[in-house]
Amino acid sequence: MKKALISGSIMVASSCFLFAAVTGDDLVQKANNSGLKPMPTGKELQKATGMDKVTKAQIELGKKLYFDPRISSSNLISCNTCHNLGLGGTDVVPAAIGHKWVMNPSHLNSPTVYNSVFNSSQFWDGRSAHLQDQAKGPIQAAPEMNADPKVVIAKITSIPEYVVEFKKAYGNNVKIDFDLIADTIAIFEKTLVTPSRYDDFLRGNVKALSKAEQEGLDLFIDKGCIACHNDINLGGTLQPLGVAKEYKFANVGGFKGNKDGMVKTPTLRNIMETMPYFHNGQYWDVKDAIKEMASIQLGDEITDKDAAKIEVFFGALTGKKPDIIYPMLPAQTIDTPKPTFD
Amino acid sequence: MKKALISGSIMVASSCFLFAAVTGDDLVQKANNSGLKPMPTGKELQKATGMDKVTKAQIELGKKLYFDPRISSSNLISCNTCHNLGLGGTDVVPAAIGHKWVMNPSHLNSPTVYNSVFNSSQFWDGRSAHLQDQAKGPIQAAPEMNADPKVVIAKITSIPEYVVEFKKAYGNNVKIDFDLIADTIAIFEKTLVTPSRYDDFLRGNVKALSKAEQEGLDLFIDKGCIACHNDINLGGTLQPLGVAKEYKFANVGGFKGNKDGMVKTPTLRNIMETMPYFHNGQYWDVKDAIKEMASIQLGDEITDKDAAKIEVFFGALTGKKPDIIYPMLPAQTIDTPKPTFD
Repeated sequence: MKKALISGSIMVASSCFLFAAVTGDDLVQKANNSGLKPMPTGKELQKATGMDKVTKAQIELGKKLYFDPRISSSNLISCNTCHNLGLGGTDVVPAAIGHKWVMNPSHLNSPTVYNSVFNSSQFWDGRSAHLQDQAKGPIQAAPEMNADPKVVIAKITSIPEYVVEFKKAYGNNVKIDFDLIADTIAIFEKTLVTPSRYDDFLRGNVKALSKAEQEGLDLFIDKGCIACHNDINLGGTLQPLGVAKEYKFANVGGFKGNKDGMVKTPTLRNIMETMPYFHNGQYWDVKDAIKEMASIQLGDEITDKDAAKIEVFFGALTGKKPDIIYPMLPAQTIDTPKPTFD
Repeated sequence: MKKALISGSIMVASSCFLFAAVTGDDLVQKANNSGLKPMPTGKELQKATGMDKVTKAQIELGKKLYFDPRISSSNLISCNTCHNLGLGGTDVVPAAIGHKWVMNPSHLNSPTVYNSVFNSSQFWDGRSAHLQDQAKGPIQAAPEMNADPKVVIAKITSIPEYVVEFKKAYGNNVKIDFDLIADTIAIFEKTLVTPSRYDDFLRGNVKALSKAEQEGLDLFIDKGCIACHNDINLGGTLQPLGVAKEYKFANVGGFKGNKDGMVKTPTLRNIMETMPYFHNGQYWDVKDAIKEMASIQLGDEITDKDAAKIEVFFGALTGKKPDIIYPMLPAQTIDTPKPTFD
């Protein structure tokens, strides 16, 4: 078998038997030329995530709000319930289940909060331009946290320690309104990035990925997955779904994307932790998801063997999670609105 | 007003107008003589909680299991859902709500997990002798985590990283059964102790409590609350409920205690964080709870002013929580049993 990379151009092998994977420095170059980008580091990361403009007090307050189930009407559901930071930022169920045990009416799967700052828009239909706007949705949605913004504000402002923390974060004249609460949650969420060995590889450390992982990455590129799963987040932009063929489980929940039928491509970072897959969570085995995606998006019925190779690459996308000290939430008072369950 | 403490004996003043509170060293002595005990420290604490017999690997594994909602049949409810370590070890709702949004059938309030190792028995009716036994209850209970022990074991053993951690914790020949899973959760729970200024005071540091807090403690003793709220946990033993009069909300949920009508006295540690109060969570204002308790247990209709004094003392029972690094839970595999929601 001879090397598939000939004088700098990329030969896409059509059969895995004839295929000789590009690896090492050549693959680093190929990946970078294919629209894949490493997560920035240091000051560049700060700038890319907006962390250069926020304070530690704002992040810490955002963390408390993120973990505080009292933001929900029932006192039982926090942001972390469906976007569990211990479970890859998801809930590991097919469709989100919220207030009153109601399943998401479109059977939508909770996307991971990790690295969501790198998405070009938020929600499966991309209807939020950024996390600040996104955070306001689930808090209010009846089958999620079911909270009236007025009650959320009343809860927060009835808790003296929260008021002190908002003042620390935004100054003594702070007006604690729903936008600011959502903004503060979003600030914490923007810290939730998970750099991985894959990023080291893209920056030229060829030893960061095993040979098998490199072969999987090469195949991932050659098969054309990078058409949608690209940039820093290997996803995060709106794309048409069902290009070559209709998605097998399109009927489950009936979600059709935005008005133009576009659906947000999920990030593949930490994909080995964020099962089940697809917007309606119909595949538990990532190999099945890979095969279905190739079939409906690329018109390519890929083999089990190739799906397994790509899965090996996906393992390298599991990133290092930030250390989270579990927040001790401030005690409420007799003025704090009581939970409601109906 | 002259000091109420006369030649070592304790004079119980019957009216707050005539009352001169015992404070300082005299109160330290009075409290210690009244059956109140400081939380032990150092090696004594290790011994009292059983922590002298466990390893760090066991504690860390227990923490993961405690936070892992996949222990429940739905993947949505962890031990931490109802015993939230950020909310004083409780859920801040009147009655626990679990699987399928079902409320505890006896309308029972989730007791705090903090310091539960110091209770002489577990559950409101004291039916579990220790936390190892207790942990097995809510995991299986239909309105709580609703899990079949066989499925819990299958989930854990399908996750390679959990198997590795059980081996690290218990040796390569470990048999991962339901008892061991519950035992390991209990090991973590036993680390959840919250020493407070109150303990420093009981050990003789008279500056640890403010004068108002000392007056509240003195009143707490004199009123007779210490009859049940005593020892390390200011509670934790089975006692009769409704001694002088029936509890106003006895009908809510219909809980009658154990076969002898005995109910476990809740700890007062962190009481300012663990509202609502009573076994069926009927009081949000701790002053109302104090007054109702005095009325039904001691036959004493205490004043708002005295209830407020005791509340001030309760503030000193808010303890220092251990730092918890939020655990990153191991990724499941295609062999892991899927969640069920019905």
